[in-house]
Amino acid sequence: MTASALDRLLAPRSVAVIGASEDATRIGGRPIAAMLAAGYAGRILPVNPNRREVQGLTCHASVDDLPEAPDAALIAVPARMVPETIAALGRRGCGMATLFSAGFAEAGADGAAAQADLLGRARDAGIRLLGPNTLGVYNVDLGYYGTFSSSLDTGFPRPGNIGIASQSGAFGAHLGALARDRALGSSVLVTTGNEADITVADAIAWMAARDGTDVICAYMEAVNDAPGLLSALDAARAAGKPVIVLKAGRSTLGARAAASHTASLTGDAVVADAVLAAHGAILVRDPEAMMDIAYVASKRIVPRDRSLGVITVSGGAGIVITDEAERIGLPMPEMPAQAQARLKALLPYAAPANPLDCTAQALNDPSLLESFTRAALADGGYGAVLSFLTYVAGSPAMSETILAAMRPLRAEWPDRIIAICGLGAPEVMARYDAEGILVFSDPCRALRAIDAVCVWGAARGAVRRDPPVPPEVALPDRAPDEAEAKRLLAASGISSAPEEAVQGVEAAVEAADALGYPVVMKILSPDILHKSDIGAVRLNLGDAEAVRGAYGAIEAAVRSGAPEARPAGMLVARQLSGGIECLMGINRDPTFGPVAVFGLGGIFVELLDDVALRACPFDEATAREMILSIRGAAILTGARGRPPADVDALAAMLSGLSVFAVGAGPRLRSVDLNPVLAMPEGQGAFALDAVIELDGEA
Amino acid sequence: MTASALDRLLAPRSVAVIGASEDATRIGGRPIAAMLAAGYAGRILPVNPNRREVQGLTCHASVDDLPEAPDAALIAVPARMVPETIAALGRRGCGMATLFSAGFAEAGADGAAAQADLLGRARDAGIRLLGPNTLGVYNVDLGYYGTFSSSLDTGFPRPGNIGIASQSGAFGAHLGALARDRALGSSVLVTTGNEADITVADAIAWMAARDGTDVICAYMEAVNDAPGLLSALDAARAAGKPVIVLKAGRSTLGARAAASHTASLTGDAVVADAVLAAHGAILVRDPEAMMDIAYVASKRIVPRDRSLGVITVSGGAGIVITDEAERIGLPMPEMPAQAQARLKALLPYAAPANPLDCTAQALNDPSLLESFTRAALADGGYGAVLSFLTYVAGSPAMSETILAAMRPLRAEWPDRIIAICGLGAPEVMARYDAEGILVFSDPCRALRAIDAVCVWGAARGAVRRDPPVPPEVALPDRAPDEAEAKRLLAASGISSAPEEAVQGVEAAVEAADALGYPVVMKILSPDILHKSDIGAVRLNLGDAEAVRGAYGAIEAAVRSGAPEARPAGMLVARQLSGGIECLMGINRDPTFGPVAVFGLGGIFVELLDDVALRACPFDEATAREMILSIRGAAILTGARGRPPADVDALAAMLSGLSVFAVGAGPRLRSVDLNPVLAMPEGQGAFALDAVIELDGEA
Repeated sequence: MTASALDRLLAPRSVAVIGASEDATRIGGRPIAAMLAAGYAGRILPVNPNRREVQGLTCHASVDDLPEAPDAALIAVPARMVPETIAALGRRGCGMATLFSAGFAEAGADGAAAQADLLGRARDAGIRLLGPNTLGVYNVDLGYYGTFSSSLDTGFPRPGNIGIASQSGAFGAHLGALARDRALGSSVLVTTGNEADITVADAIAWMAARDGTDVICAYMEAVNDAPGLLSALDAARAAGKPVIVLKAGRSTLGARAAASHTASLTGDAVVADAVLAAHGAILVRDPEAMMDIAYVASKRIVPRDRSLGVITVSGGAGIVITDEAERIGLPMPEMPAQAQARLKALLPYAAPANPLDCTAQALNDPSLLESFTRAALADGGYGAVLSFLTYVAGSPAMSETILAAMRPLRAEWPDRIIAICGLGAPEVMARYDAEGILVFSDPCRALRAIDAVCVWGAARGAVRRDPPVPPEVALPDRAPDEAEAKRLLAASGISSAPEEAVQGVEAAVEAADALGYPVVMKILSPDILHKSDIGAVRLNLGDAEAVRGAYGAIEAAVRSGAPEARPAGMLVARQLSGGIECLMGINRDPTFGPVAVFGLGGIFVELLDDVALRACPFDEATAREMILSIRGAAILTGARGRPPADVDALAAMLSGLSVFAVGAGPRLRSVDLNPVLAMPEGQGAFALDAVIELDGEA
Repeated sequence: MTASALDRLLAPRSVAVIGASEDATRIGGRPIAAMLAAGYAGRILPVNPNRREVQGLTCHASVDDLPEAPDAALIAVPARMVPETIAALGRRGCGMATLFSAGFAEAGADGAAAQADLLGRARDAGIRLLGPNTLGVYNVDLGYYGTFSSSLDTGFPRPGNIGIASQSGAFGAHLGALARDRALGSSVLVTTGNEADITVADAIAWMAARDGTDVICAYMEAVNDAPGLLSALDAARAAGKPVIVLKAGRSTLGARAAASHTASLTGDAVVADAVLAAHGAILVRDPEAMMDIAYVASKRIVPRDRSLGVITVSGGAGIVITDEAERIGLPMPEMPAQAQARLKALLPYAAPANPLDCTAQALNDPSLLESFTRAALADGGYGAVLSFLTYVAGSPAMSETILAAMRPLRAEWPDRIIAICGLGAPEVMARYDAEGILVFSDPCRALRAIDAVCVWGAARGAVRRDPPVPPEVALPDRAPDEAEAKRLLAASGISSAPEEAVQGVEAAVEAADALGYPVVMKILSPDILHKSDIGAVRLNLGDAEAVRGAYGAIEAAVRSGAPEARPAGMLVARQLSGGIECLMGINRDPTFGPVAVFGLGGIFVELLDDVALRACPFDEATAREMILSIRGAAILTGARGRPPADVDALAAMLSGLSVFAVGAGPRLRSVDLNPVLAMPEGQGAFALDAVIELDGEA
């Protein structure tokens, strides 16, 4: 959907209220009362056959009687009356309907059928739908309240640049009220309910494209339009607008099977995290943390550097802050020596490294605070400066002095985040905020929110490469055996150990002689995916005699372990050694399509879930980032005297696999390369096994 | 120190102010002004040779001129005048002096010497010291303000049952102001500064013993009195008073060497965490999280069960809460089926499993809220019930109804935590709090704070065993070689593989024949701790010939690799296999004495820092808890088809090692058992190497 289609939803020039009520506490009355109170700039058109007037406005008997084609309609009539209302709105030329009515997909199978029917009718009528089962939308600057949320009973939102998009109505309204109660301004709220048509992704795209919203808070459970969501995230990032996402439903989705097969390594929530983060979303779990980050981002200052300078009047607080900065990885570089010497000259018992402790002496001589803060900005060059001032900042007398000291600094360094941690009456603390100085009561919360914005800025600044264009892959009609799978993958640059598929014991010996000993031998059959489970893999065959013995033993094992399997011969491969065992795979995520997984073998995957995920396709540089992002990456880079592994070869293989997965199309269910042997640097990486699973048989 | 000694510090009947000032903004004037404003119940005795009256009170020319022996004295004179003041106070019979003056240990070596001198004089004079360099104390109920903190400029603390003990003055005062600003009451604040004498541990012990404080918030950097701190924590736990500890300085201490030697596996902060937690401390990193937990604990309800029931008017919020509960491990069991059916009958489209979603319908029919909450308490039996009510709770009209519904439930279940997540004006939300219903604006913060109290309660309820009494261990004069070390440890129940120390190649063969092949052979020398580094260990010796060859090879390796070493023969041991490699060790922590460490070998320790720590001594049950607490514990308990290891034998060995470490006394620097082979269940655990390091040579 183009963003402009949502203009009628979020910035309508006129709105019809179908089922308008005189009673300002009823669903059909609340929006009218709210718009009247907020001075909605457009025209409100109540529709109710039983009234001539509603809340002082002329009421129309039917949609057909409306004096104009409304941009938007709010539908507050029972579910059974909705289809006819939609048809009438279509006839009248209304393009956008918000459907408060419940009793659709959220109410079971019958409701889902009714919702599908309704969507068909709306499309026929040329009408876009918000909902059903939505709490509606608001647009603060226009005074447009197409919502029946009772959150307005405790006050209207303040104008501001934080937009909220939420699948859940009550939770979205909670976020709006949370912003308001901490004196943050919001621009629009969109709650999408059942998402029959318009999704959270559409709302994000609209906010990304329209002035007035600089930060987007999004709450979602299901992702109903994955491509739309990813492109909305990309658009917001391109527009310089951080999107903070709370994706709920982790616990109900994440139950992981214990099997070692890569298909079971990841829950949906983990996949969603990886994909959304790759598209620039800032992921949070707490509503409050979401609002903290939105607050920082609302100032529209995204530092070039992820680095923090700390000014403090308490040595203790300086240590607490340093601890938290280290924990979250926010760098706190030391001040340059010369600047430290200058500050020492000002205050001999100061500790001016970073934190810059100007001690309680700053209470007696507030010029110290200015000097220290100026030094942090000018000499330290920190992207963000946080001053721990606690109750000193809240003292009405001191606050004047502190503001006088910080005002010129705020003006002089417009590209830096300047924040204080202070305690005091809200009206005192609001004065700092009004001058562009962020105010937090908790230093650790301040750090986490500031860092999220710094990290977002750094990732945004990083060069992003277009993913490779996947050539189409011709899949066989049925799941390939190991040799076929490896041949298919080889075309995408995925190397295996030198190997040969053979028929008969003497052909096996001949192949082994040619490959060089030791060799490994395994049954080939499209019907046996997990060969070692039935004893159909033999390792370390050192000579022709061993090959001959193993051939018979494998045949016997297959006869007893998989009597129904169609044998397709034997695979003889050179046995590689001296590498590090990894695994790679592809799983088709129902939401995001093919997702690649990388991990080390063994306990790293079995016990530690130490894997990296990414939606396919991606280039080698991205693959390299994935590989180095796992906790056990040091094993590959030469920890404790080990030779470094060929990470370049792994990255090429992983990227190649991601391209293969997209080229293979939706019939590809999964690929499992386990193990992949990463040889020492310069010596390559080789898939020692390959299993490809396909959906359906052609 | 007995708690009663601190009565004079924290609840004095009279206080002398040495260096009393008329100016209420000066250090010698602030405490007097604060006590006059707060109506201090005791007698204020200003001392200043230049004034007859201070702030309306009779001023005394000198300590000797005081009309009575004051319980406490506040010293606000320059450092050079302090010694004589202390002497005079001693003569006069004052027992407790608070030393605001700075310029002592915090100011360098000269200051440290002055502080030591002062402490000697105070002891001679029979005076206990708070500080120097302290911001002082307050006791809210008495109106006693022995502090010059400017935090009082923004208001006095409210009376309440949260006590604060802080090494840092400004940070302690920040905690006090933080409590006040969120309408939490505090009883006492103690800031200990340089801790020449009185420590945070003393303050905790006092609060543990005295009525009026039910929750203790403690901030510390160094632990200056470890035994005192641990016994204060034990006393608080015994008194049912949670102690919430923010131990700062993690980042400066935690730099870990990469060596595999156990001595380098743990930073001081990790040791402190482990020891404090074992004594019941609730550990936090954020001041705000500290205050959240203190808030929950201040209601003095510690549930029997760690379980949560959630009532919500928003399905979305229910999911967010469930996600966070799962993340932190707070169980949310389902409601009994019968109760669910009953709730379904009340509200057909409710989801009453847990979360219990009574939907926005609760706004129209508030009796639903009561029914659902009652069911959670009565049928669900949850230790804590959290209702997500967002802005509904803050609506003045709804708040009356909600309170009317919850009041009888609060009274009926006095042993359960009942909390709401709500947004609204402070005066509206305060009404819930006044009725014993906890109020949070963020559901995730609520969860974390509630859970901390539940976990504390569960740990407090667990049976605690007295640690074993360590028999004295006679250490040799110098560091023992491997065979001696194993003999020493064997007396504490630590088994090694069957082995024999021999001299000469034929004795080695004879020993190997007797032990059974394969054997392992290593050099014995008190001068070579890391034998394999120089090639002085040979494994897998399968017959007498191999033993003979290895003997010469090891001798040659020692001659070239450690020519100065005094050889003490050769150790021949049966080579065990089939077990899981672990490691155990002892390190003498400068603060907490001998600390035991347990981990798996290899990457778990090298890359993942996956170890468990505990102060020695401890019993086998505690050792078992440690062993099973590491992330890789599943490897020992039979993950993925492996045979379970003999955890009982490991636990016996680890406990035995902890007892040995205490019995060996302060000369024991470290013990390193690496590897320890844990055999399959019932087959024991064996130290394959043992290194004991001692301090000094006798």
